[in-house]
Order: sequence, then structure tokens, then C-alpha cells
Amino acid sequence: MVKLVLVRHGQSLANQENVYTGWSDSPLTEKGIAEAKLAGRKLSGTDISFAHVHTSVLKRAIKTADLIISELDQAYLPLTKTWRLNERHYGALRGLNKDVTRKLYGEKQVALWRRSYDAVPPLLKERPKERRYQRYPASIVPKAESLKMASKRIIPYWVDHIAPELLRGKNQLVVAHGSTLRALVKYLEAISDEGIDGVEVANAAPIVYELDEKLQIISKTIL
Amino acid sequence: MVKLVLVRHGQSLANQENVYTGWSDSPLTEKGIAEAKLAGRKLSGTDISFAHVHTSVLKRAIKTADLIISELDQAYLPLTKTWRLNERHYGALRGLNKDVTRKLYGEKQVALWRRSYDAVPPLLKERPKERRYQRYPASIVPKAESLKMASKRIIPYWVDHIAPELLRGKNQLVVAHGSTLRALVKYLEAISDEGIDGVEVANAAPIVYELDEKLQIISKTIL
Repeated sequence: MVKLVLVRHGQSLANQENVYTGWSDSPLTEKGIAEAKLAGRKLSGTDISFAHVHTSVLKRAIKTADLIISELDQAYLPLTKTWRLNERHYGALRGLNKDVTRKLYGEKQVALWRRSYDAVPPLLKERPKERRYQRYPASIVPKAESLKMASKRIIPYWVDHIAPELLRGKNQLVVAHGSTLRALVKYLEAISDEGIDGVEVANAAPIVYELDEKLQIISKTIL
Repeated sequence: MVKLVLVRHGQSLANQENVYTGWSDSPLTEKGIAEAKLAGRKLSGTDISFAHVHTSVLKRAIKTADLIISELDQAYLPLTKTWRLNERHYGALRGLNKDVTRKLYGEKQVALWRRSYDAVPPLLKERPKERRYQRYPASIVPKAESLKMASKRIIPYWVDHIAPELLRGKNQLVVAHGSTLRALVKYLEAISDEGIDGVEVANAAPIVYELDEKLQIISKTIL
């Protein structure tokens, strides 16, 4: 039996201001820092010994991961930062207030963009250029993503870097984002495209999966 | 031309208390945290764009590295934590006050242990067992190390993981420890076994090397 723990970052400034973020690099708030530390203390109360930590290249997730492993007194854990675990790219909604967006586009359309599997938010006109993605082909930076599009770049990371470690019996910690984790939960729990509508992932509440030798779920606990 | 920056961690609790640390996991003090942030601000005032960060598996170096890249607003930089960049292992001196040690063993002997290339401090009776080293053969954990012994495990990391990146034109940041960096400086500057006696590396003062395409030193600046 092996353990996989998923943690969404603590409250970000964008969460606090109720704006869409996606690949924008919003920092944690003071509340978010406290939430991340609390997540670490909750995990240190379990007997889970992690072998590896995976996070995105966005500072709200990286900082949450750093705070968690500091609370565990295991700052030495290897930590991989990958664009593949980035939040879903919210396209032209990025930086817009969620209430304002509802007024602009209507409640129903916004709900589709936020919760459905394949609705794509309005595209950016150009792919944003950022130094952190320069080591990759320009095409990795989206103009906007549906949850389905995000899944397509998230699951290869799961397949190549997380699942093999779990199959070797090594517990893994993934610190990422709301939509990233919805995509992983959908995949792990084989939730239908329609069913994913109802799934939400709260900030900094560790989801602990016990998995069998085929990575089938034995139990799921939210701390 | 490529840049290599070496930074020793900010003040640790052990530095403050004037005790030998080595592989013990002493945290940064408040002063150490401020020093690390200042090192980050100094580096953000240069035009150096890093491709990779390397540090030890000891929290004083990891935290210093995290604080520096946060100050650079580049928390996303890939960061490798390796036991090979750990401080020199101080053996049975670990945890002892430096003044007390001088009284016990004499000024001259202590100076030899601290500054010479091949003096080995008193050995621990057993190799300490720690979870962070369990993924490696037990023999990597020393009972004590001379600077020469430490160099023998540091230089392979340089050869395999830092030098190849520099040769590809990628600037590298190494955040480590007093003796680790003395070993690297000795190697880079081809300092003799006797000459290394006089070399000290201050806490959190970035050493910036400009290197040519054969990794020969063009200039060295301490920020």
C-alpha cells in the first residue's frame, strides 16, 4: 500500500481578490501562508513518509510546498517544479473579477467555463512570453485551456513521474492548483466528463489516497 | 561567457552559538534570513539570469536558496538538493562549542582541523542514520571528513551537474556551506593544498565568477 497526497495551494492574492489567475503568478496571502503551514502540521500528524514532492512553476504552489515540507522538518525532500502541474490557463479571463465576468458573460456561461470539462475560456490574442517557459517549445504556453486541455498536459506528468514512483512503493506529495487537482482526481477516480462538474478542491486541505499495487484507490481521506 | 555564483547560507543557529555543525541540520536565525534576502536583492541588482540552482540537503542552505530565488521573483527555477553539497562532516566535534574545543584540544590542533586540507576531525563511533540518506548506500554518511575527503564527494557533482550546464552557456547558482564552497573555490582557482588555509567564505556574500568557454576564470567579484 502506498500513499498519494494532493494539496491545493493556500489562499493566493487572486483568490482573496476573487479574480481569475491561471498561469499568472499570484503570491500567497498571509492567510494562505498560515493555511499552508497548517496543512504541513496536519500531515506531520500522520505517519506518511514522502519520497518526492511535485509542484508547478507558480509561486503560490511552490511556496505552499516549501512551507509544508518545512513544517514536516523535511526541507531536504526532492522537489520537482513543472509547468505541467500549472493551473488551468484562464485565457482572456485572467485578471478579471469573477463577479464582473458573470455580469459580462452571464452566470450560465461563466459556470460552464469554470466547472465543465471541455468549455474553453476566451483566448488571449497572443501566447504570453515568459522567461520561465523559454526552455520549452513556445507551443506549451496556451492562449486558454479547458479542463480537458489541461488534463492532456497534466496526465503525461502523472504517467512518467508520479505513478512510477508510487508503483515502487514511494509515497508522493503533489502540491498544485484547483483545476490541476480536479484533473488528477477525475483520472484517479475515473469520474465522467459530466461528473467532474460537482468536484471542488479546497485550499490547503490535504487529500490522502491509499492506493493498491495497481494504483486502485483503497481509501480517500481529506485532512 | 557564462556566470557561476556561489553563496554560503545566511547565519545559522549553530553559527550564532559558535558550535560545529557539519551535517547537523541547524536552521537559519532571523539574522540569517535577513542576510539571505539581502543576498537575493544584491543578485537581483545584477543582470544574471540563472538556469539552475544547486544546494545541499541541509535546511540552512535550502532556505537560503529559496529566499534568494524568491527575492529574484524566480521561485520557479529548478533547484536540486544533493548530499554532495553538504557541509564538511565535523565528526565528533559536531555540536561542540568552538572555544571549548580550543581549550580541550589546543589552538593549533583546532586550527588544523578547521583550515587545513587533510586534517580529519575526531571520528564519530558510528555512522549516524538519517532518513534523508536512506536512498543511498550507508557508506555515503561519513564519521568525519577532512576538506580533502569532502572535495572527493563534491567535485563529482560539479563535474556531472554544474560544469556541463555552464559549458552549455547556462548560468548556475550554488547555495551551500563554508567548506563546500572552499572546496569548489580551491578546484576552480587551482589553489594549492597549503594555500587553501587562507581562504574563507563569508555568510550570504555572493561570489560571482565570469568563466570562459573552457570554464577558466575571467573575473571574480564578491557582492
